[in-house]
Amino acid sequence: MSGSLNAIDRLVVLLSKLPGIGKKSATRMAYYILDADPSYSNMLAEQLASLHQAIRRCSRCGSFAESDPCPICADPDRDASLICVVERPQDIRVIEESREFRGYFHVLGGLIAPLEGVGPNDLTIGKLLARIKGGGIKEIILALNPTVEGDTTSLYIQKLLKGLDVELTRLASGLPVGGDLEYADRLTLSRSFRGRVKL
Amino acid sequence: MSGSLNAIDRLVVLLSKLPGIGKKSATRMAYYILDADPSYSNMLAEQLASLHQAIRRCSRCGSFAESDPCPICADPDRDASLICVVERPQDIRVIEESREFRGYFHVLGGLIAPLEGVGPNDLTIGKLLARIKGGGIKEIILALNPTVEGDTTSLYIQKLLKGLDVELTRLASGLPVGGDLEYADRLTLSRSFRGRVKL
Repeated sequence: MSGSLNAIDRLVVLLSKLPGIGKKSATRMAYYILDADPSYSNMLAEQLASLHQAIRRCSRCGSFAESDPCPICADPDRDASLICVVERPQDIRVIEESREFRGYFHVLGGLIAPLEGVGPNDLTIGKLLARIKGGGIKEIILALNPTVEGDTTSLYIQKLLKGLDVELTRLASGLPVGGDLEYADRLTLSRSFRGRVKL
Repeated sequence: MSGSLNAIDRLVVLLSKLPGIGKKSATRMAYYILDADPSYSNMLAEQLASLHQAIRRCSRCGSFAESDPCPICADPDRDASLICVVERPQDIRVIEESREFRGYFHVLGGLIAPLEGVGPNDLTIGKLLARIKGGGIKEIILALNPTVEGDTTSLYIQKLLKGLDVELTRLASGLPVGGDLEYADRLTLSRSFRGRVKL
């Protein structure tokens, strides 16, 4: 409101950097925080200040966790013959919530995207190879987004693992459960035709 | 991912309390903060921790500001014969950005809403009356949301000011009925200032 930025403006500027948050949403959030009990902003401040100290990358799978190895890599009751390869740590969270997979994970840290200058060496593919060569792995499941980058990365890993005694699979892509055929895009539809299952 | 909440989960829980932010958005924000340089989360933490100390309510208009009186109330170059009445401090921000109004403000702190148990005494209407009786005010502009609560509050103030030598106007309904002042664009807001109608 005045010429220079005040504490509210500075908070709005910082909040606007968050993904999916524009200036209007950031302003709304800032005034919500101002209206709320100070204990809320203090707790949020504490969490943010301690976040990077509390959370580190797991040296085994590359996920974010409070301990190294992370709780999943440290769990002896999982199936050590299965590795699910994901792009980002947050993908693990979604897969864990589905309770469908009981093996271990490997975070690539991105996808091969030549146009954005991301090559195989920017990812943890070498580390994945080392884990496989360590032995005991029967199947690698690629749980990458069904996009051009995801497909490129899958193809690269496929070529790399040729000759190794390990099965390589990737998540089926097709119509989302509860979705409507009418709203399916052409590519999704053609993939669900190719991947059709016998009843 | 483990049984108890880790630092990421705790941040997600806190971020989910923000208006318009669900669990998915909060998770996205938390991982963005984790991926970003620690200086970002530290700056955000500092802003949040100091927010309630830095910002107070202006004792004159009721707005949030770093100083009391706020920069607007302390500005001698504004038109002292005009008071614009708003529901919340953030409404002042939107009106200031329209550059249509050069008087002073008065924040009601809410709207009369009997179903939610908000009566006239919960608002700063008495303080508004005192400002008017202090003299020098020619016009009160009601810039309240065009909703049932906004209309009820306008009507109440209209009855209260009857007999006082002050003109009472309200913003023209260039604003979409049922909408929110916070999301009005600059032009719509300008027009509703120019087309304000006498009550």
